[in-house]
Amino acid sequence: MSIQPKPLLLRALAGETLDRPPVWFMRQAGRSLPEYRELRTRATDFIAFCHNPEMAAEATLQPMRRFPLDAAIVFADILLIPKALGQEVWFEAGEGPRLGELPSIESMADQVEASTGRLSAIGETLTRVRAELEPERALIGFAGAPWTVATYMIEGRGSDRSEARSFIYQNPEKLDALLEVLVESTARYLIMQARAGAQVLKLFESWAEGLSEDRFERIVIKPHQAIIERVRAAGIEAPFIGFPRGAGALVANYAAKVPVSAVALDTQAPMALGRSIQTGGKAIQGALDNLLLRAGGPALDARVEALIEGWNQGPYIFNLGHGVLPDTPIEHIERTIRRVTGR
Amino acid sequence: MSIQPKPLLLRALAGETLDRPPVWFMRQAGRSLPEYRELRTRATDFIAFCHNPEMAAEATLQPMRRFPLDAAIVFADILLIPKALGQEVWFEAGEGPRLGELPSIESMADQVEASTGRLSAIGETLTRVRAELEPERALIGFAGAPWTVATYMIEGRGSDRSEARSFIYQNPEKLDALLEVLVESTARYLIMQARAGAQVLKLFESWAEGLSEDRFERIVIKPHQAIIERVRAAGIEAPFIGFPRGAGALVANYAAKVPVSAVALDTQAPMALGRSIQTGGKAIQGALDNLLLRAGGPALDARVEALIEGWNQGPYIFNLGHGVLPDTPIEHIERTIRRVTGR
Repeated sequence: MSIQPKPLLLRALAGETLDRPPVWFMRQAGRSLPEYRELRTRATDFIAFCHNPEMAAEATLQPMRRFPLDAAIVFADILLIPKALGQEVWFEAGEGPRLGELPSIESMADQVEASTGRLSAIGETLTRVRAELEPERALIGFAGAPWTVATYMIEGRGSDRSEARSFIYQNPEKLDALLEVLVESTARYLIMQARAGAQVLKLFESWAEGLSEDRFERIVIKPHQAIIERVRAAGIEAPFIGFPRGAGALVANYAAKVPVSAVALDTQAPMALGRSIQTGGKAIQGALDNLLLRAGGPALDARVEALIEGWNQGPYIFNLGHGVLPDTPIEHIERTIRRVTGR
Repeated sequence: MSIQPKPLLLRALAGETLDRPPVWFMRQAGRSLPEYRELRTRATDFIAFCHNPEMAAEATLQPMRRFPLDAAIVFADILLIPKALGQEVWFEAGEGPRLGELPSIESMADQVEASTGRLSAIGETLTRVRAELEPERALIGFAGAPWTVATYMIEGRGSDRSEARSFIYQNPEKLDALLEVLVESTARYLIMQARAGAQVLKLFESWAEGLSEDRFERIVIKPHQAIIERVRAAGIEAPFIGFPRGAGALVANYAAKVPVSAVALDTQAPMALGRSIQTGGKAIQGALDNLLLRAGGPALDARVEALIEGWNQGPYIFNLGHGVLPDTPIEHIERTIRRVTGR
């Protein structure tokens, strides 16, 4: 048996400072790749696409074939959970997600156990990808964090979240109950993903912005803590990456309180904030501006250098501060990976 | 001659820790007041309303008659500047601002000197308000900060700013030139406001979110520094309040580098961030959630207490983290002022 080198991503998540950071990109799979756009035409429905392990595995692997990335992330969507809990979810072409009426908390609580089974296709995708992926490349599973998923469930669509943020004050008990259902279903979903082959688990809190410190504690920090505790209680030791996007200075509270191995930082995270999280004992990930990746040019090269110089003094994972934009030129992605890896 | 007590707002801005913080609210004038909605019907055009000193002074004074507030803020709009520089600006009912094509930088640079004259009505409004306002209540003038105004000028409307943020990377020289024009016209506009009666000047950087640290330095911090320098060079000593809304952890950079007397904090600013700005020698303002002000109830009272307890250990101005929402019940505003002032 040959000795397999530990994937760089797992080394960074274990707290190692590396010669060069591992690199992957949020939304590295998907619409920025022509081969994805071709593949996507084979299913009419985006949700059905995510639930088809053959197609979803192919979408996950496409960027791994094209680029020397250090990690794959399972192709799925954060709204598969509300769907599995009994809320209608569909995608309008060019307009993003639409959700039906919010089911009663009781009916969703009754669906929590069954919901994990309804998501088993995502486990199959992970198993297929892990079987094909080289051992030095890590595989990431993920879920939307409860508050972010709740914003869609409450508003019925992507939006400015003003209705969901009003809900915080107008229906605090109902929100707590909804978050509790989501904590339990999300924990089970992540446990299933880890057992199916995910070596790292990421929580996307994509809409952490605009919350006051006390609400952030209650609807972001506590649910993240609860999920990780629940996953650990099931014997899963996979490291977590937490991504409280838009949390601003509250990222420091998050890093201090949530037992993730790495905090993913968004575009506006200052160098000093990232360094202080590393000094506090966690890895960081991020935070290249996706608009700059799209724009390219010498400004892109300079920023990539500055991020590595500033953050590779501690455990660091190179990534964007948000997802790859669909119209990002592929040569900008290639060029950036080359500058990070030397490959 | 009787000795006039110095307005509380000016004392806080001079660095005093007070028995109770001065209080005012962003958007305290305007659509949340029935008397404003009545007044507004007398002009068909919102821009014309802002340029009518009689009506604008009345709108400025309406909340001062109704509530025991410590400061008035001139009723105006941040888009009066692009209009004065020759870009078309109009308001679609229920949809917000619309702007015509961005004029050439050269043509706008030629308009800078004339633009201040075109804004003289706002000076008249200030003079009228100052004459009517009790001396213990301060009068605030303001302008939109260059980057925020530029986002509207580039996009032609309120939006998610993705086009303006792309412009940063795609047209960096043009953006620099546009910001330079805005720095100069904004400085002149504020000098005029101070000479007409404004005792405090506020810069609204309403869209500071989503910028990387280096871009924030270039398009937020430097223009704010330049405006204040230009205003000081004209012999104006009025204190500045800077409001980098959505800047997250970058607020610390802002507070360290921009010579404002107070930093206005948005809803998500942690207690510790505000305290560190005070310890660094500046006053802070904010940061009650406007959604909580609208929702009311015991949660509102508790949050008001928590803010005062946390932040009135240093120079502090009580305010919201964003503007009063139009459908905010007036009794919630009254109740909050009573809890802050004891009146």
